[in-house]
Amino acid sequence: MTAGPQDQACLVVQGPDRPGIVAAVSAFVARHHGNIVSLDQYSDDPEGGEFFQRLVLHHPGLRAALPELQADLAETLEPFGLQGRITDLSVPPRMAVLASTSAHCLLDLLWRHRGGELPVSVPMVISNHPDLADDVRTFGIPFVHVPSQGADKAAAEAEILRLLVGNVDVVVLARYMQILSGDFLQKIGVPVINIHHSFLPAFIGAAPYRKAKERGVKLIGATAHYVTEDLDEGPIIEQDVVRVTHADSAADLQRRGADVERAVLSRAVLWHAQQRVFRSGNHCIVF
Amino acid sequence: MTAGPQDQACLVVQGPDRPGIVAAVSAFVARHHGNIVSLDQYSDDPEGGEFFQRLVLHHPGLRAALPELQADLAETLEPFGLQGRITDLSVPPRMAVLASTSAHCLLDLLWRHRGGELPVSVPMVISNHPDLADDVRTFGIPFVHVPSQGADKAAAEAEILRLLVGNVDVVVLARYMQILSGDFLQKIGVPVINIHHSFLPAFIGAAPYRKAKERGVKLIGATAHYVTEDLDEGPIIEQDVVRVTHADSAADLQRRGADVERAVLSRAVLWHAQQRVFRSGNHCIVF
Amino acid sequence: MTAGPQDQACLVVQGPDRPGIVAAVSAFVARHHGNIVSLDQYSDDPEGGEFFQRLVLHHPGLRAALPELQADLAETLEPFGLQGRITDLSVPPRMAVLASTSAHCLLDLLWRHRGGELPVSVPMVISNHPDLADDVRTFGIPFVHVPSQGADKAAAEAEILRLLVGNVDVVVLARYMQILSGDFLQKIGVPVINIHHSFLPAFIGAAPYRKAKERGVKLIGATAHYVTEDLDEGPIIEQDVVRVTHADSAADLQRRGADVERAVLSRAVLWHAQQRVFRSGNHCIVF
Amino acid sequence: MTAGPQDQACLVVQGPDRPGIVAAVSAFVARHHGNIVSLDQYSDDPEGGEFFQRLVLHHPGLRAALPELQADLAETLEPFGLQGRITDLSVPPRMAVLASTSAHCLLDLLWRHRGGELPVSVPMVISNHPDLADDVRTFGIPFVHVPSQGADKAAAEAEILRLLVGNVDVVVLARYMQILSGDFLQKIGVPVINIHHSFLPAFIGAAPYRKAKERGVKLIGATAHYVTEDLDEGPIIEQDVVRVTHADSAADLQRRGADVERAVLSRAVLWHAQQRVFRSGNHCIVF
Repeated sequence: MTAGPQDQACLVVQGPDRPGIVAAVSAFVARHHGNIVSLDQYSDDPEGGEFFQRLVLHHPGLRAALPELQADLAETLEPFGLQGRITDLSVPPRMAVLASTSAHCLLDLLWRHRGGELPVSVPMVISNHPDLADDVRTFGIPFVHVPSQGADKAAAEAEILRLLVGNVDVVVLARYMQILSGDFLQKIGVPVINIHHSFLPAFIGAAPYRKAKERGVKLIGATAHYVTEDLDEGPIIEQDVVRVTHADSAADLQRRGADVERAVLSRAVLWHAQQRVFRSGNHCIVF
Repeated sequence: MTAGPQDQACLVVQGPDRPGIVAAVSAFVARHHGNIVSLDQYSDDPEGGEFFQRLVLHHPGLRAALPELQADLAETLEPFGLQGRITDLSVPPRMAVLASTSAHCLLDLLWRHRGGELPVSVPMVISNHPDLADDVRTFGIPFVHVPSQGADKAAAEAEILRLLVGNVDVVVLARYMQILSGDFLQKIGVPVINIHHSFLPAFIGAAPYRKAKERGVKLIGATAHYVTEDLDEGPIIEQDVVRVTHADSAADLQRRGADVERAVLSRAVLWHAQQRVFRSGNHCIVF
Repeated sequence: MTAGPQDQACLVVQGPDRPGIVAAVSAFVARHHGNIVSLDQYSDDPEGGEFFQRLVLHHPGLRAALPELQADLAETLEPFGLQGRITDLSVPPRMAVLASTSAHCLLDLLWRHRGGELPVSVPMVISNHPDLADDVRTFGIPFVHVPSQGADKAAAEAEILRLLVGNVDVVVLARYMQILSGDFLQKIGVPVINIHHSFLPAFIGAAPYRKAKERGVKLIGATAHYVTEDLDEGPIIEQDVVRVTHADSAADLQRRGADVERAVLSRAVLWHAQQRVFRSGNHCIVF
Repeated sequence: MTAGPQDQACLVVQGPDRPGIVAAVSAFVARHHGNIVSLDQYSDDPEGGEFFQRLVLHHPGLRAALPELQADLAETLEPFGLQGRITDLSVPPRMAVLASTSAHCLLDLLWRHRGGELPVSVPMVISNHPDLADDVRTFGIPFVHVPSQGADKAAAEAEILRLLVGNVDVVVLARYMQILSGDFLQKIGVPVINIHHSFLPAFIGAAPYRKAKERGVKLIGATAHYVTEDLDEGPIIEQDVVRVTHADSAADLQRRGADVERAVLSRAVLWHAQQRVFRSGNHCIVF
């Protein structure tokens, strides 16, 4: 488990923008003698828009003080109709990874996790194929094989829900080649992050590298987004591209795209774990 | 007029790939005592694919020798069923620009042209609005206003054809906000290059920056392509992107996208003028 | 003159970091009924470091209220030992440009200014060569030729000071090929921004493209920085690079580098004009 | 071991540029009934410069024909005073990796190798620390610990030479924190590739990320180069950069730089293994 910094709290606030919010939150911090380490805020429209704020504060003895902080924050935000939370950054969110047979995105996450770059814990990796079991267990992380063939889809989803619900705070699809049902997304109850192997909204759906080759594009990309019921239409967290040429075959595109996929997914997971990502309609605010 | 290098010829070859082409072309160059300055080639499939070659050669006294070179080249390529041409790089292609009211792409081209970066001549700029007349004439280039309102479309196209046919080797649409008819494309008889203000095939059609803002993408782009009858579907010459954030408004995207548009269009025009671009089906090979 | 947004004030604060600053500034904004449009802050060390904050606020009737706001701000910051100012964003800073014979950086600035992208006014362009006079005057901007040959350096600097002191808020060196004396920098009394045609600290001094070609680098760059007495050592505002290959000649590097230079300089000038750049020792904080 | 494509030969030629080389090489390919898959060439000066060519050709029954091809190639090139070789691409070069305690560059290479992306064999990894033994052996690759403390340097180098000479075709320093002596470089007799954690020539020597933080740069980079006796001065194969801000600590720079380092080193190793890199003085030509 990679612990975050000690005695640092992350305060996030979201809701209708109104004058006085920043002053109220600042006063909250001041009366608890917190020291602001960083502060980001954004309003998508200064008149009647939505307001987003992320604040990291240093507070000695945070763990003991947290319940009181949480209670006072709720009182502070209530008159504004805002939603918010304050959490201890030394407690990493629990992340499950779903994979299939491709190793690159999964191993990039596990590597970075082992190297202390990702402030998450990884209770479990689940795959619908057994291929990556050894790779995962090398990192000391449990690997569970949940096959998902043909008519088994509901059964497989039920099995995954049984393993994950209550045990994880976020699910990451690291080239998991199954479409999750709306029912699953509702029951899992935590954000699900996917990596799509194209620069969305270009090349929605299957086989984007083949389509990219056919269209003769000069850049290929990858997109990390929250999963919604609409395939490849969820809020985008991060995207990036790499330059290709006519001389690159579809296999070359796939190979070069794999590097972009793992970089984009790792950045998206990092930012989510750091609570830098706010969802608003079909968009993401990323501080 | 920006002249290209003296005594340098550009030889381009395209057609079915067969063993012996490179040897035959090299022998052609050798028996005319040309010195190869650069050579690029590509075959999209070594077995039964299409072959593309671009060769720049230094040949003292090129202008006088050109007719003989052209005749011998035709004989050299004929047995292979290849198409090719050899041209004098000191004779720049003639480029007309069609614009509307946006200045950035047009002025970038004229500016680079004046600075000697674009080996073309610019006999004329045509616009369906008068706004840019002074800007264009500052460069010593004729500006012709051909309005294109409502039912006039056929009349306007006829007027443009009358001005351009026989006088230009390439037409560039520098944010020309009119869709050209298939009839026009056929009659103009030279390549037409367009800049589309998105990373195609994402955001085909009108208002791509607004659509990009709505979709919440993290990169916006521009695409230079040859114009075909299928809107935004022609062969892509060049693309690029720039990173944006949630804090960028649709107007910001438009402003930042304008920088990408002019850079991408200028590169595409340069490469076309240097005969680096080969069309093959709906693709471009760019050396 | 490009005016900034009406009724928006920019508040910047810099100084020793202490608990309570954010609360005090927020309270200041709240008691003047300002609405926060954006807020950025940074502390280079939460314990004993330096604090930087930039805040844009909407305040109807700003022009009339500004003196009172300024007085109250001074009182608010005084107990913290902070420096700060609040200014009307609709009043653009006055920018003089110094150039020599290269047009690309100068014209990029003037173009963007004319297009409303740069919130500055441009009272004057000064050059030590007459070449760019017509280009500048086309934009309706005064051009003054101040030659600077041999022993005239002090005389030329004195002439420039006479023209600029009191008339400008920032001076931009757009490929001005003269080194300004320490005496000049002191007397000019406003920030001076330079564009260096390399990725500093690589290739300090003259002829960086030639040096880059000799070293065989695979990327070339440009650096915009505040000018100090130490040549090419001032605080960096912005940098960027572009990929090159062995096939690019030193002239190609210069041509491709010119695109990076103008882009980097324009971004740096924009950010400076928007008061996004804070100097701290030999660094810049850029919000 | 990752084998390259079957029945494909790589022909590389380097030496003084003269008319007729391309024709002679093409004739060589034609008379052996080879089919050209790709061809790149470059002359650093069409008049009296140096010529470089890389040609991949398909030749059924290559392995049996190779000795005859090699003999004929030598005869073909001899009159031109050129150096060249023709090799079987299905036989991968043997690559040893030297590492210390940092895993990122080493594991990226081994991972790509395992995934079939790097056409090399890896007979051995040597480190002056035991830390990475398990990681390496997981890939089925021998790990040898050769400590190099204090006065042992000559002894350690002798031990490494004993292990490697005759057994490898290239040595890669994957963040190997020891400076190799000129004597070692001479005796090893094969190219040595290093990754330097800065955008050379900026920040030569130790602690480049700390220096980058101190200088306040806005981009950090990495450079892969051939090792020569002059520290950080060898011919550059590849470079890349990533954008950073004032908010990134020196540790952040190191973490983000690590991603650039491994990407740059892996590309350099790939291109070297594919015989795309030609050394010429202190430069690299990379096809």
